[in-house]
Amino acid sequence: MIHTLLILFSLLTFSAHAAVQDFCVADLKGPQTPAGYTCKPAGTVTVDDFVSTGLRFAGNTSNIIKAAVTPEFAEQFPGVNGLGISIARLDLAVGGVVPMHTHPGGNELLLVTQGFVQAGFVSSANEVYVKTLEKGDIMVFPQGLLHFQVNAGGVTAVAFASFSSATPGLQILDFALFANDLPSKLVEATTFLDDATVKALKAVLGGTG
Amino acid sequence: MIHTLLILFSLLTFSAHAAVQDFCVADLKGPQTPAGYTCKPAGTVTVDDFVSTGLRFAGNTSNIIKAAVTPEFAEQFPGVNGLGISIARLDLAVGGVVPMHTHPGGNELLLVTQGFVQAGFVSSANEVYVKTLEKGDIMVFPQGLLHFQVNAGGVTAVAFASFSSATPGLQILDFALFANDLPSKLVEATTFLDDATVKALKAVLGGTG
Amino acid sequence: MIHTLLILFSLLTFSAHAAVQDFCVADLKGPQTPAGYTCKPAGTVTVDDFVSTGLRFAGNTSNIIKAAVTPEFAEQFPGVNGLGISIARLDLAVGGVVPMHTHPGGNELLLVTQGFVQAGFVSSANEVYVKTLEKGDIMVFPQGLLHFQVNAGGVTAVAFASFSSATPGLQILDFALFANDLPSKLVEATTFLDDATVKALKAVLGGTG
Amino acid sequence: MIHTLLILFSLLTFSAHAAVQDFCVADLKGPQTPAGYTCKPAGTVTVDDFVSTGLRFAGNTSNIIKAAVTPEFAEQFPGVNGLGISIARLDLAVGGVVPMHTHPGGNELLLVTQGFVQAGFVSSANEVYVKTLEKGDIMVFPQGLLHFQVNAGGVTAVAFASFSSATPGLQILDFALFANDLPSKLVEATTFLDDATVKALKAVLGGTG
Amino acid sequence: MIHTLLILFSLLTFSAHAAVQDFCVADLKGPQTPAGYTCKPAGTVTVDDFVSTGLRFAGNTSNIIKAAVTPEFAEQFPGVNGLGISIARLDLAVGGVVPMHTHPGGNELLLVTQGFVQAGFVSSANEVYVKTLEKGDIMVFPQGLLHFQVNAGGVTAVAFASFSSATPGLQILDFALFANDLPSKLVEATTFLDDATVKALKAVLGGTG
Amino acid sequence: MIHTLLILFSLLTFSAHAAVQDFCVADLKGPQTPAGYTCKPAGTVTVDDFVSTGLRFAGNTSNIIKAAVTPEFAEQFPGVNGLGISIARLDLAVGGVVPMHTHPGGNELLLVTQGFVQAGFVSSANEVYVKTLEKGDIMVFPQGLLHFQVNAGGVTAVAFASFSSATPGLQILDFALFANDLPSKLVEATTFLDDATVKALKAVLGGTG
Repeated sequence: MIHTLLILFSLLTFSAHAAVQDFCVADLKGPQTPAGYTCKPAGTVTVDDFVSTGLRFAGNTSNIIKAAVTPEFAEQFPGVNGLGISIARLDLAVGGVVPMHTHPGGNELLLVTQGFVQAGFVSSANEVYVKTLEKGDIMVFPQGLLHFQVNAGGVTAVAFASFSSATPGLQILDFALFANDLPSKLVEATTFLDDATVKALKAVLGGTG
Repeated sequence: MIHTLLILFSLLTFSAHAAVQDFCVADLKGPQTPAGYTCKPAGTVTVDDFVSTGLRFAGNTSNIIKAAVTPEFAEQFPGVNGLGISIARLDLAVGGVVPMHTHPGGNELLLVTQGFVQAGFVSSANEVYVKTLEKGDIMVFPQGLLHFQVNAGGVTAVAFASFSSATPGLQILDFALFANDLPSKLVEATTFLDDATVKALKAVLGGTG
Repeated sequence: MIHTLLILFSLLTFSAHAAVQDFCVADLKGPQTPAGYTCKPAGTVTVDDFVSTGLRFAGNTSNIIKAAVTPEFAEQFPGVNGLGISIARLDLAVGGVVPMHTHPGGNELLLVTQGFVQAGFVSSANEVYVKTLEKGDIMVFPQGLLHFQVNAGGVTAVAFASFSSATPGLQILDFALFANDLPSKLVEATTFLDDATVKALKAVLGGTG
Repeated sequence: MIHTLLILFSLLTFSAHAAVQDFCVADLKGPQTPAGYTCKPAGTVTVDDFVSTGLRFAGNTSNIIKAAVTPEFAEQFPGVNGLGISIARLDLAVGGVVPMHTHPGGNELLLVTQGFVQAGFVSSANEVYVKTLEKGDIMVFPQGLLHFQVNAGGVTAVAFASFSSATPGLQILDFALFANDLPSKLVEATTFLDDATVKALKAVLGGTG
Repeated sequence: MIHTLLILFSLLTFSAHAAVQDFCVADLKGPQTPAGYTCKPAGTVTVDDFVSTGLRFAGNTSNIIKAAVTPEFAEQFPGVNGLGISIARLDLAVGGVVPMHTHPGGNELLLVTQGFVQAGFVSSANEVYVKTLEKGDIMVFPQGLLHFQVNAGGVTAVAFASFSSATPGLQILDFALFANDLPSKLVEATTFLDDATVKALKAVLGGTG
Repeated sequence: MIHTLLILFSLLTFSAHAAVQDFCVADLKGPQTPAGYTCKPAGTVTVDDFVSTGLRFAGNTSNIIKAAVTPEFAEQFPGVNGLGISIARLDLAVGGVVPMHTHPGGNELLLVTQGFVQAGFVSSANEVYVKTLEKGDIMVFPQGLLHFQVNAGGVTAVAFASFSSATPGLQILDFALFANDLPSKLVEATTFLDDATVKALKAVLGGTG
């Protein structure tokens, strides 16, 4: 019986190997495609491609927003390439804020694991959805809509944001408007902000023009 | 021969009818689904479901932005439901502006058909892509990224924006921030704008809180 | 200026409202579709559709596997319907096991938030990928592949599994084989398990035949 | 131990039931959606929804094309709804022809199970790909491209065409041009066929105008 | 405050850069994939990748169909690669015709910007949908279905066709049948056209066999 | 007229060539991507890329399961790459069994072409769907669910399984559990099988640990 089962083994192994596209670990040195990075050769994949320890520790919140965002997107965590999922860690010191931003490429599901977080988003119809979350609570933010998270308690808050894409993107409103060379005149014309406000924020955030 | 071909006709008609999901004209009274509206019954569809005359005339630009946006999304143009495409007309009087906005649900391809339009978008990496377009020029704006269009000449401009979705959505930055009941304190904390600016714009745009 | 901006407001509100398919909160009483549940009417959606407190507390692990799985899929958390994301909480008492299982409909990203978890999956090519994770570690399990999680420490472990689908499904191997009316003869013929083993497990798990 | 496993059973059953969207058997009386028919209620699904005996017997080839096409698309075989797959049986008597046609909604994979079939398609670049297939041979026809199958031997041929869609559609060239009320003048202007040819085929195939 | 904001800037820039797959400008020299071309390296992308002036001027209509089609698909306009959208310009002199054709890979939305265009398509159920459009009118043609456009007035007509794909393809019926080496015998058997008609059109269109 | 049609030919050929991504024949030497293999250069594609004779003959069933599975996935049949379809041949001698397995990447549609096959699958809700099929019968197995096929008659059976993916994968339960180095202790803890059973099957199937 052993003999015949081994025959089975060798026969069926062929078809099993035929199907090896269960996953596509990113080859970060290869070209990107509209569907993600090209794949590492199958023979070079190990368990460490599917595991990351990069979110074990809090990010550095010694900054003006008293917050840190640590992504594990395809670029940091090649195992998620092509799988339509990724994650990021949010650390919010007391008073911390993740400023108004969008993820152009994916929906977000936030899980609070410590402290209190007030989170919200605005819909295309300009409806506002805001809630204060505590440990264990979850909230979902649809793709591309402006949203934010702020520490809502007297203690450090931690949360994890999962995304429906391996490359959800991140566009922070203030950086998009004030931290590049988009001419002040255009910012003003398209946001109704006055020249003084635009120039002050450009100065602070390193923008020019 | 006529007789036999008619037999063919009756036989094959069966299989032809079997395949009637070439399209799914929106039943605007039916429920929506994650993939779009439910479909009108096949027997009630006419050519007028696939045609719209709604973009023949300029929108009213007698407003502060001197601009008008006229959408033909699934709600206005039921024939595009489920087909991953839609369109909108942009009219920009002299000095007209389509303010900073995003389409959370689709990519945009802009075609200028009259006048001059300065258009631009900002990427997730905060890079700025701005260009002045003239009649016949096209520009593409990736999904979810902040972008704008302004009249760049001394004449009325007209453009048509196609989208890679029947429901691309439209989030206008100033409305999302200032034209609803999102508390000023939260706007300020998450945008770095000062209280006076936020309250002034809320007052103008009808926001509260 | 207020007047003209209000004109702008009323004009553009039309197009903004035109685009309201940012999300599709599940109408659990409506029919399902291949893309998910039909949507609740827009006017009835509130922030509570996008928030859940269902994962605040540990599931009951007083059972033979000393483990609990608490899902927040579209059925429990209607706000994720159509958004390609969902989550579940795993509680593993000391000695706890989430038995060998698959998610036929989605990829999984596991985040350990307490204790130690040994987790693994087997690929189509029969390669084994196993790792012991600690607090803050993440691991990804590709869609449809057999995988498991076991408590790997002397303390209760907690983990959260995110999925790339609002309805990832869950097929637990032992239940699929032994907890229904699949005839023992077929189980034996298709798994190479002997009659005594199959009947014993069927008896324990409530299977018949 | 039985007791505790039964506890396990009742606990986990909950999460298992949470995931019941493994399939979406078409409710043919319900509305269609862009993603397919709405689903039959879970409790009413039986094995017969996933099985069809409709292809056991040859279709009637006593017609001018000496051929029959018997589809098992979502409308005939509700179990494939939403699963991105379907099938059809082709019977080709000696001299039989499946005329030039396209499937607008899916790719086709043809398997010959009896006799000889000459099959071919034309690409967008006007390249021709033709081959004579025998029993056991397979050929793939990309979505939307004109293709055909003709009996290439002295015996009845049988083939089965699988599709990458539950509703691949079927547009038979001659029917699209000559078996409806598309005005002859338009047919002639857009095909370069002469008036006599168009009118003759319209007469035979039941077209008007 | 400037200092701390700059810290914020450098910290968050990291995560922003992590997300750079907002777009995937085609590297026309790289390999193609099922999802489109591979992407140009991020550092080499400029605004000119997202803009094209290729549709400014009318195509040459001094030909038998008195029409010209000028595509801006991924090959001509690399910025749309992977974005599910593209466009083409149609110029129709008086009497001009875009012959019966299909787009195997995408849905089409036609916008008339000058003159009058009679356009139509035939569904899988052989229903005919024809309409005469004027300036500003739009019409949608579902993927893979035969359709056409003809000048319907006494003046030159111009239209722009948007597509729900960056590579919608284009199969012109007469070219597929008569402008290649598909044997006349096969054309005749699969279209019911007579030998004289097929050979005449093959001669004119450069076909052989 | 010939002259002018040739002008038409040369003009339109340009746009036709612009659209050549009707298909993407796998370049098996190139890198893989999340959407499949990169494409062979267009100029090197021939009809033989779209045809395979690999399923003409029965696989070798002289093994313990008295069965053979011969896949024609993208790796064996490059023409299906990116087209969302593939096929495999099943040969079942008298007493033959295709053991319990899943396809993590695609739905399956089984067609019996000879003999009798008892086939079944188990849903996420642990419902069992079993049926005995005869020649011409079809059955569908949703993605990722455990299923099997056994010869149900006194004659050799043949069946063809189509898949909704070019790389559906194949995970055979016994091989995943017993034919690799997954430690026996983990197999036992996660399947409730006893040590003797696990070790016996590991020995037979070549597993270690």
